[in-house]
Amino acid sequence: MANKHKQHADDVNDLLREFGNNVYRQRTRGEGNPISQEKLAEKAGLHRTYIGAVERGEKNLTLFNICKIALALGIQPADLMEFEEETINAISEKL
Amino acid sequence: MANKHKQHADDVNDLLREFGNNVYRQRTRGEGNPISQEKLAEKAGLHRTYIGAVERGEKNLTLFNICKIALALGIQPADLMEFEEETINAISEKL
Repeated sequence: MANKHKQHADDVNDLLREFGNNVYRQRTRGEGNPISQEKLAEKAGLHRTYIGAVERGEKNLTLFNICKIALALGIQPADLMEFEEETINAISEKL
Repeated sequence: MANKHKQHADDVNDLLREFGNNVYRQRTRGEGNPISQEKLAEKAGLHRTYIGAVERGEKNLTLFNICKIALALGIQPADLMEFEEETINAISEKL
C-alpha cells in the first residue's frame, strides 16, 4: 500500500513537472516574446510565486488557472497539455 | 466590484460547462464505445457523482484529474481542452 501511494505520487509529480516545463518553455521561448515570471503572473492575474511553483511542478493546478496561464502566454489551453508518452503511459497503466 | 466578480464567475462557469460537455461527448459518442458514467468513474479511479458533477460543469478540476479522465476515455488530455473561441475570448479579454 505504501508502495502504491508512492507510485501514485511519482506519477502525479512527473505530470506536474512536465506541465511546468511546458509553461517554462512557452514563457521563455514560445510563440510570443520571452516574458518574465512576474509579467506572466501579472497578465494571468496570478501571483509570481504561484507561477514559480507551477514551473517547478509543485502545483496540481485547476482547469481555470491552466486556461488563464495559456491565454496570458498567447496560446491555447491544449498547447500546455502535451506530455511525454512515457508519463501518460505510467498513469494509464495504473488506472 | 460585484459586477466584476459576477463576470468572472460567468467566465469560469462557461469554461467548466464546456469542459463537461467535452467529457460527456467523448464518453457517449467518442472514439471508443459509449460507456456509462459509472464505468468511466471506475476506469478513472474517481467517484460516479464526481464524474456527474464534472459533466454538469460544476467542478474546476485539477490537472491530474483531467488527465485521468482523458486516459480512461482512451484519448489524450489535450483532446478534452478544446473550447469555443467565444469562451476563450471572454476569459482572455479580462486578463
